[in-house]
Amino acid sequence: MNKYIFPGKNSWNELIKRPVLKREEISEIVQNIFDEVKKNGDQALFDFNKKFDAVDIENLSPSIDEVQNSENLISEDLKNAIQTAKENITIFHQSQKAEIQKIETTKGVICWRENRAIEKVGIYIPGGTAPLFSTVLMLAIPAQLAGCKEIILCTPPDKNGEINPAILYTAKLCGIAKIFKTGGAQAVAAMTFGTESIPNVYKIFGPGNQFVVAAKELAQNYGVAIDMPAGPSEVLIIADKNAVPEFCAADLLSQAEHGSDSQVIFISTDAKILEETIEETQKQLENLPRNEFARQSLSNSHFILMKSLDEALEFSNLYAPEHLILAITDFEKYIPAIENAGSVFLGNYSCESAGDYASGTNHTLPTNGFAKNYSGVSLDSFVKKITFQNLSKEGIQNLGKTIEIMAEAEGLFAHKNAVSIRLKN
Amino acid sequence: MNKYIFPGKNSWNELIKRPVLKREEISEIVQNIFDEVKKNGDQALFDFNKKFDAVDIENLSPSIDEVQNSENLISEDLKNAIQTAKENITIFHQSQKAEIQKIETTKGVICWRENRAIEKVGIYIPGGTAPLFSTVLMLAIPAQLAGCKEIILCTPPDKNGEINPAILYTAKLCGIAKIFKTGGAQAVAAMTFGTESIPNVYKIFGPGNQFVVAAKELAQNYGVAIDMPAGPSEVLIIADKNAVPEFCAADLLSQAEHGSDSQVIFISTDAKILEETIEETQKQLENLPRNEFARQSLSNSHFILMKSLDEALEFSNLYAPEHLILAITDFEKYIPAIENAGSVFLGNYSCESAGDYASGTNHTLPTNGFAKNYSGVSLDSFVKKITFQNLSKEGIQNLGKTIEIMAEAEGLFAHKNAVSIRLKN
Repeated sequence: MNKYIFPGKNSWNELIKRPVLKREEISEIVQNIFDEVKKNGDQALFDFNKKFDAVDIENLSPSIDEVQNSENLISEDLKNAIQTAKENITIFHQSQKAEIQKIETTKGVICWRENRAIEKVGIYIPGGTAPLFSTVLMLAIPAQLAGCKEIILCTPPDKNGEINPAILYTAKLCGIAKIFKTGGAQAVAAMTFGTESIPNVYKIFGPGNQFVVAAKELAQNYGVAIDMPAGPSEVLIIADKNAVPEFCAADLLSQAEHGSDSQVIFISTDAKILEETIEETQKQLENLPRNEFARQSLSNSHFILMKSLDEALEFSNLYAPEHLILAITDFEKYIPAIENAGSVFLGNYSCESAGDYASGTNHTLPTNGFAKNYSGVSLDSFVKKITFQNLSKEGIQNLGKTIEIMAEAEGLFAHKNAVSIRLKN
Repeated sequence: MNKYIFPGKNSWNELIKRPVLKREEISEIVQNIFDEVKKNGDQALFDFNKKFDAVDIENLSPSIDEVQNSENLISEDLKNAIQTAKENITIFHQSQKAEIQKIETTKGVICWRENRAIEKVGIYIPGGTAPLFSTVLMLAIPAQLAGCKEIILCTPPDKNGEINPAILYTAKLCGIAKIFKTGGAQAVAAMTFGTESIPNVYKIFGPGNQFVVAAKELAQNYGVAIDMPAGPSEVLIIADKNAVPEFCAADLLSQAEHGSDSQVIFISTDAKILEETIEETQKQLENLPRNEFARQSLSNSHFILMKSLDEALEFSNLYAPEHLILAITDFEKYIPAIENAGSVFLGNYSCESAGDYASGTNHTLPTNGFAKNYSGVSLDSFVKKITFQNLSKEGIQNLGKTIEIMAEAEGLFAHKNAVSIRLKN
């Protein structure tokens, strides 16, 4: 834990630095995986399952029994919790649907936009240290609400060749019928090119390790869209004198436990709150099962004392955190000052894990400073907005001259002629 | 011009093929340009101006006189036309602003989204064969409406070291104060890294040749967002027996004149309309100043007779055209069948050039099949949508148990603890 007391602005660029990603080292590995999957399809996936996940399976899809049985392997409590989360996520994403709004820009010229679902989308769910069934909810629900026709899900099998039952159960609950046991860069390659078993898709969503991140970026070179570029997860907390150190410490740790490269930044305008939060963080750390991750990630974390909330917000906008917690009394007042953030949690009772799981907002958010230029996943991420226009005879008469003059000035006479020939008619 | 009579579906994948882009050949050139600009800043831009645009300038910015004088170099008619277009584009993009909608997903849990402008954006306007001042309108207007704080514009100077006055005038009219005389991949590199004169930006917009397209893709590797991937421009027209061959031919040519790699596809359900449109296209072609471009692009074009409008729409969705013109009587009936298209023009009087210039819709649209997974530029392209949430005491009490159960099931105990510690309080 690094502590900074009133750091000068000339040091800020150092403080906002993220862990450096080893982009080039892995891009060759990922390209080779892509080439292999493109060439050998399913067989390449079987081979990579053996190589990377130490599992030898004969069928990429879970059996019907495996899917059905998932329901019996998880508790009623968990099923109910998943159902509650599903309802909230549905309500919030449903509210993002926009009505068609026809606009007459000039008499006889009517323009509007309509949403169309991206037909084929792929969801990647990591295996690894945590079975992220919550991410299934965050991606499958808006995909279904948008009306995507084909939604596929790839996730690595465990050592027994099986998928975590909570992931399977959630996928089934969300109506995802096409599930495949493949992970890492090879799963992304499979969704990019398609294989005998796995259909190719037009857009790939979901988190993953640095190989998955690199693979998604490479997929773009083959015409596939991705949700957003990514890096390790992060939180920035701004706390005033009324913040609760126990709560702040718990929130910092809930970010730090994600992985050893997670970033946590705590800023307070109150020296006592700063010290108590540091103490409390160390105390709570001891009792965590994943405290090795948390300890490593905390070693790179920053605890900063600042002179004012305005200054703290200025720093936060420069850092552009994935998660921003305003543990301050007058949070309403500071909302307009927030420029760059993925998702914002307001007040002492809005913990990040609420948004991670069940409040309704999406937890697929821009990291690594990408909150400066990207939004988190929403219903919009699963649709294209198509513009429409209809010009009546009157419309072309009213607007024709304008178009002719502009087209001629750009030297595009066929553009002009398309109007002239209609005006003559 | 290639004519196809009732082509079988097994031939469709051949018919939807785009011209192949020479990606690998140019990626090395573009990478070198990036390295050079990153290393040498402004000096690299001066050198590239000499090398690629054969012009030796000492200042990357136009002088105040040059900007002021642009107003005197273009006609009143053109100024009025630009003003009319500006008004319509403003009306349509303004209508895309969404109200903040606060949603209570669970009693005491309030979630919403707010838009924030991307702080720094860059607009690229090609030089080349047409001075695309219309693209200045299409990008600067939504950037201003969104509230982007820094909007810069790069465009290559002509042989006299000057910028086309219509481009300068339009930029000034749209309130763009930072204009730079640099083009091609080096302009994109400058906006990516920043130079002594040119600020770096978070997102780059605008069309360009294959070097610019490759440079924008490369910019993404450095954390800069782009409007969308791109390819040559294209139109697909679907015409029934009531279409007007003269109009259709004019629309096809207005696309074909863009460049020798433009794509035009004409589909009719009426053999007579098909034949007359082919004839009319050849006739109108003769009188065009840019008919060399149009002739080359028409040599790769397809004129297709199909059995039904349903079949034509199915083909169109597979092709995913940038521009789709429905020159059919019952266009209302077929709108729901449109799945993939950038912008759609309905009826005999809705020519593509209306949308290119002045109806109000944006002309920066997905090409090369990207209409399957990308939207055209809109107000949304210039903002991030940030999610907010506020949980009251009651909110965390209502939702806490759900979060605890899910966090524990994912093995994330610090996530659980962030709730437990609040519930205990």
